Amino acid sequence: MAKGILFVLSGPSGAGKGTALKKVFKKLDNLEYSVSATTRKPRKGEIEGKNYFFKTDEEFNSMLQNGELLEHVEKYGNRYGTVKSFIEEALNKGKDIILEIETVGAEKIKNMDFEQVRIFLTPSSIADLIYRLSARNTETEDWRAERLRLGKEELKCAYDYDYIVVNDDLHKAVEELVAIITAERCRVKRNLQKIKNILQE
Amino acid sequence: MAKGILFVLSGPSGAGKGTALKKVFKKLDNLEYSVSATTRKPRKGEIEGKNYFFKTDEEFNSMLQNGELLEHVEKYGNRYGTVKSFIEEALNKGKDIILEIETVGAEKIKNMDFEQVRIFLTPSSIADLIYRLSARNTETEDWRAERLRLGKEELKCAYDYDYIVVNDDLHKAVEELVAIITAERCRVKRNLQKIKNILQE
Repeated sequence: MAKGILFVLSGPSGAGKGTALKKVFKKLDNLEYSVSATTRKPRKGEIEGKNYFFKTDEEFNSMLQNGELLEHVEKYGNRYGTVKSFIEEALNKGKDIILEIETVGAEKIKNMDFEQVRIFLTPSSIADLIYRLSARNTETEDWRAERLRLGKEELKCAYDYDYIVVNDDLHKAVEELVAIITAERCRVKRNLQKIKNILQE
Repeated sequence: MAKGILFVLSGPSGAGKGTALKKVFKKLDNLEYSVSATTRKPRKGEIEGKNYFFKTDEEFNSMLQNGELLEHVEKYGNRYGTVKSFIEEALNKGKDIILEIETVGAEKIKNMDFEQVRIFLTPSSIADLIYRLSARNTETEDWRAERLRLGKEELKCAYDYDYIVVNDDLHKAVEELVAIITAERCRVKRNLQKIKNILQE
């Protein structure tokens, strides 16, 4: 069985990664969401082991010390980490994985020993980014201002990705994300055994 | 305006390239079919300038001498050639082009100065290839036998492409072809100006 593919989905906060991904998962099989560890408190509706592994500071430190995290970042006073074993096990089972991650974290794992397909989801403009952040009610005004500053920084990372999806139309953005995953699954380098089988019949 | 993308679609005769492409064209905009020149007689329903540019031997020779063909092959006593100006003009207008071509021709243009996305469409097995060729009524039994021999040779070319699409289910094959084209349009390297625009707003 071929190993799974690791898709790294990044982009500025407020680009709509979470909303788009939910729809992508409804359209594709054999795809898993990489569940991160975090010290942040759960938001309403978030489920342990599905959205995040919620950890205390002590537990997070322990994971770090044991080398259980591929990378970790601190953001707005909370820590987020990518759980190595979770990704490895899924890929080895032949499952494709989507890792939704901040641009800083994506940069850190870029040169690791995992082959990655890197996708950047972006709002269509700075104005759109501001609009998206204003629509969020989960944070304070100060947080939104800081997020906007960071968002502009993050947009500059786009050049460093394989694919860019502009989220000016959610339906189109979801179709493009599904297309990228579908296309990468058709790459010859990932289907060598299948080709061999066709030829041997 | 960004230049168009050249998609090269190849695979053994009988893989179903023509049927699949017709459906692909119904689902995508900004895509043109590369019309080849041929000395073969038109089949029923084929239209001059849409399916082929039908040429006499003399006309074909003249195109060759004038360097108007990117490549040409002889097959079953007929000649087929890729019309250079047709492709160049479409790409310069920002149109994406699909060049449906035999594996021998695809091999010839592989290293040319056109960036290409190479897609191989294949039946799911040798048995399926035989079945597909038998279902064709346009050629004699001898021709089908010769096509099968060639088809087996052609299948071996699959390793040399970017993408492979297995045509065991026409609907799925069409979806995969559409996905590959959609994904390639999202490549960062093809959207540098778009990224610049987002950042400058």
